[in-house]
Amino acid sequence: MMQTPLTMTQMITRAEKYFAKKHVVSRTSSGIHRFTYKEIAKRTRRLAHSLEKLGIKKGDRVGTLAWNHHRHLEAYFAIPCSGAVLHTINIRLSPQHIAFIIHHAEDQVLLIDADLIPLIENCQSQLSTVKAYIIMTDDDKLPETSLTPVYHYERLLEEASEEYEFCEDIDENDPAGMCYTSATTGNPKGVVYSHRGIVLHSMALGLADSTALSEKDIAMPVVPMFHVNAWGLPFAATWFGTTLVLPGPYFTPKILAQLIESERVTVTAGVPTIWLGLLKELEKKSYNMSSLRGILCGGAAAPKGMIKAFEKKHNIPFMHAYGMTETSPLAVISTLKSYQEEQSEEERFDLKAKQGILVPCLEMKVIGKNGEVQWNGIEMGELAIRGPWIASEYFKDECTNKAFRDGWLYTGDVVTVDEEGFLKIVDRTKDLIKSGGEWISSVDIENVLMAYETVFEAAVVAVPHEKWQERPVACVVLKDEFKGKVTKEELYEFLSPQFAKWWLPDDIIFMDEIPKTSVGKFLKRTLRDELQSYLQKN
Amino acid sequence: MMQTPLTMTQMITRAEKYFAKKHVVSRTSSGIHRFTYKEIAKRTRRLAHSLEKLGIKKGDRVGTLAWNHHRHLEAYFAIPCSGAVLHTINIRLSPQHIAFIIHHAEDQVLLIDADLIPLIENCQSQLSTVKAYIIMTDDDKLPETSLTPVYHYERLLEEASEEYEFCEDIDENDPAGMCYTSATTGNPKGVVYSHRGIVLHSMALGLADSTALSEKDIAMPVVPMFHVNAWGLPFAATWFGTTLVLPGPYFTPKILAQLIESERVTVTAGVPTIWLGLLKELEKKSYNMSSLRGILCGGAAAPKGMIKAFEKKHNIPFMHAYGMTETSPLAVISTLKSYQEEQSEEERFDLKAKQGILVPCLEMKVIGKNGEVQWNGIEMGELAIRGPWIASEYFKDECTNKAFRDGWLYTGDVVTVDEEGFLKIVDRTKDLIKSGGEWISSVDIENVLMAYETVFEAAVVAVPHEKWQERPVACVVLKDEFKGKVTKEELYEFLSPQFAKWWLPDDIIFMDEIPKTSVGKFLKRTLRDELQSYLQKN
Repeated sequence: MMQTPLTMTQMITRAEKYFAKKHVVSRTSSGIHRFTYKEIAKRTRRLAHSLEKLGIKKGDRVGTLAWNHHRHLEAYFAIPCSGAVLHTINIRLSPQHIAFIIHHAEDQVLLIDADLIPLIENCQSQLSTVKAYIIMTDDDKLPETSLTPVYHYERLLEEASEEYEFCEDIDENDPAGMCYTSATTGNPKGVVYSHRGIVLHSMALGLADSTALSEKDIAMPVVPMFHVNAWGLPFAATWFGTTLVLPGPYFTPKILAQLIESERVTVTAGVPTIWLGLLKELEKKSYNMSSLRGILCGGAAAPKGMIKAFEKKHNIPFMHAYGMTETSPLAVISTLKSYQEEQSEEERFDLKAKQGILVPCLEMKVIGKNGEVQWNGIEMGELAIRGPWIASEYFKDECTNKAFRDGWLYTGDVVTVDEEGFLKIVDRTKDLIKSGGEWISSVDIENVLMAYETVFEAAVVAVPHEKWQERPVACVVLKDEFKGKVTKEELYEFLSPQFAKWWLPDDIIFMDEIPKTSVGKFLKRTLRDELQSYLQKN
Repeated sequence: MMQTPLTMTQMITRAEKYFAKKHVVSRTSSGIHRFTYKEIAKRTRRLAHSLEKLGIKKGDRVGTLAWNHHRHLEAYFAIPCSGAVLHTINIRLSPQHIAFIIHHAEDQVLLIDADLIPLIENCQSQLSTVKAYIIMTDDDKLPETSLTPVYHYERLLEEASEEYEFCEDIDENDPAGMCYTSATTGNPKGVVYSHRGIVLHSMALGLADSTALSEKDIAMPVVPMFHVNAWGLPFAATWFGTTLVLPGPYFTPKILAQLIESERVTVTAGVPTIWLGLLKELEKKSYNMSSLRGILCGGAAAPKGMIKAFEKKHNIPFMHAYGMTETSPLAVISTLKSYQEEQSEEERFDLKAKQGILVPCLEMKVIGKNGEVQWNGIEMGELAIRGPWIASEYFKDECTNKAFRDGWLYTGDVVTVDEEGFLKIVDRTKDLIKSGGEWISSVDIENVLMAYETVFEAAVVAVPHEKWQERPVACVVLKDEFKGKVTKEELYEFLSPQFAKWWLPDDIIFMDEIPKTSVGKFLKRTLRDELQSYLQKN
């Protein structure tokens, strides 16, 4: 067989040749813009040429601080297809962490949304590697900024050639992108994605039994493009000629619902908190959601109640999946098998509330107290994964490489696997509650609480206990209309029949909001700290 | 990213773990048999162990002469997953060619269907490399044979271990399979498939915009497993947990129709002559074909009339595709784009009669008289392809390697490409009719003839001409009910409005049958020879 490499240039050139008429819909601060893939490809060539003119060489890192829009998409291809490395910077990291990762990645050029300039101005003095700042804006004029040297994205494109040829000297194992994890302790850790990894991961997104991304889709990644490449959707969508809807900055559930309705979005993707927000919006107002063939949900476990609400009340199919920055991210997806589709409705929802089965090309093992666990849906163990789009190390960070052992990534997630191979995340190893030598899953209790009709969000964390070592405490945010109308006792009454007595939380605390990480996951460490003081006071 | 290799062991082990309950339905000479993938996987491990005990080592070639059935499927995985090379032998080759390729491939062991033993007995004296003959049969006893040493497949499996571990020391570029082309001139040429090529090709079969093969499918490859790995469907189907229906030896259109009806087949695959046969059967008798979501058709151009008959009369969607032994084979498939689906019925059938657009991971160029042709649906040129599942050479056959130049495979197929990137096979370079310095496509005339309701098959070939160099002559087989009732003049009347006058065949000759190659393609060389003597006599 030919040794043609799996590189990303084929993706954008395929869109350019075969899907020239298809569209990218981009919402920016100035409104909705529409570009054909032909235009996007030309602009991508211009950007690649501009980067070359700015001195970017093969292997150099180029950072982006940007929302989901067409210019960010152009950077998604221009940077790797010119041989450089696309470093998407999580704008929700702390200023210290943003400065740290730009410096650690040795970014040579930064592409920055105009409204995000202050994030960089604050730490410019620490950015010794950065040779140029490119501002992405719809305005003709550059905003006032202390950044220097500074360039206007559109002016650079105007001065570059749309005939620019992408780099032909790329090995499939060359780095194409990188993303730092949103660490809750220590410094963020960098994951480097190769061309090969991104191409194979994109193919996995196109598989009929995975997300089945197709030219016929109109895909709206709500998951930010600064977070794990928006789950790889912009890459795969461009390759397959899928219409892309990029929702831009500062969207609300209402804006998302309107975009789905007006653009006839068929598939969208994001974390559970986004969909809880959308669900609330759909309960307030009626929208035409009939175009949607699937909501892809990952990043944290989706509560069964939410899945049910989407499917039963709104007739919107739900695709529950699992992955992490280190896994590109798609690893596991809850596509039901043909014979599972014939089970009772309740059994089907139970399956969909699991993360599902491993996608092709990957391998997994689950290590419990006594070696690999039985596939019985009960035994718990830590999930380890390997495969061609799984990271093998953290970038320039040997001391944190203990997650990578014997060729496997140890995910830090505790899971069960049932007889059908369906994996269920039980907890993070660090969030498991160790009570009297036994394990309690905080996630299980959270999911049951969130299935209760009055509950909006719930987080369960361990608090220290003299006798039992740790005990669970539940933090609950009620839906607006139920605030002040629901008692602890009512929630205990709902929980009691569903758990062994020793699993029940020692306390239930009502809150206005649960602290979250930059990507919308519960920030349990902060919550535990808050509870410490709460418990001392009470 | 991890450097985990793309090898085939992951396919059979995925079926074993995740789709243990799913079925392989196998029709053999003794009837229909049903095996779960769990059973198939165990038997595959036993076969791999048996081969090891017979002395098969990494890289050794093991030949199969067999129909589409479960034992052949076991060989499909046992051979490559033990590190050896699966050499599927085309049973329809001439005895000399069969002996040639076994010797040329240096097959160490042959697995042979009991009813195909005579093919090998005839040439046993020439098979100096073969150390063992394994007979695949439902009978407990071996048939009488002069082959020696000879083994009974099921006895070998009984004596081997179902716990056998597949080879772990496989590089993704190691050879996994090989297949010789059915040469019409010279000796057959061998194509070697790598593990990487087979894995990536299988992913392509699973893409939503390609054949979208899924766990929910019930797939029946009618294309023989001795021909280009039955288009790779057995590999992909096992990997994805698709139910497989293997139609076994000596099937008729009636048997195929019955299998589709009784097994609720969702997708089937084969060459146009198979589907012409099925169409005739459906016109004779009524069958329930409602389970079919697609007929995959390749190997030769599918006439528009046939596509229309399936879709309009029988409500069976048609998937027209293009490939060859050297391309694994899937290269091009006629999946309509979303906006093409909105065109008129006639326009859609015109598109479906084209082979379609290139699948992801591949690249193509079309070389005409003056370099790369315009994508205007008119300019003709030879198709060249490259990609990770395209052959880079013929096995031990340097003098025929002229098809491989500058990293491209020159297919020998003349094509046009339209504005949308839809490729249409115009002809084989060698079958193009060169009349007065211009090109006439034999395939175009054939397709129009075959769209006529009285015509069953039509082949158009070049005959020498003093003035024009070559001129077309059409050979036509009428449908049974129209035999003797249709005149040349009637056919000319049908053809005339559709072609320039100089494209019209100089003669139309009625025949009982058109000679075909071992895989059902028109044998135009033989036809030309027959016509020579016909024209001399008349």
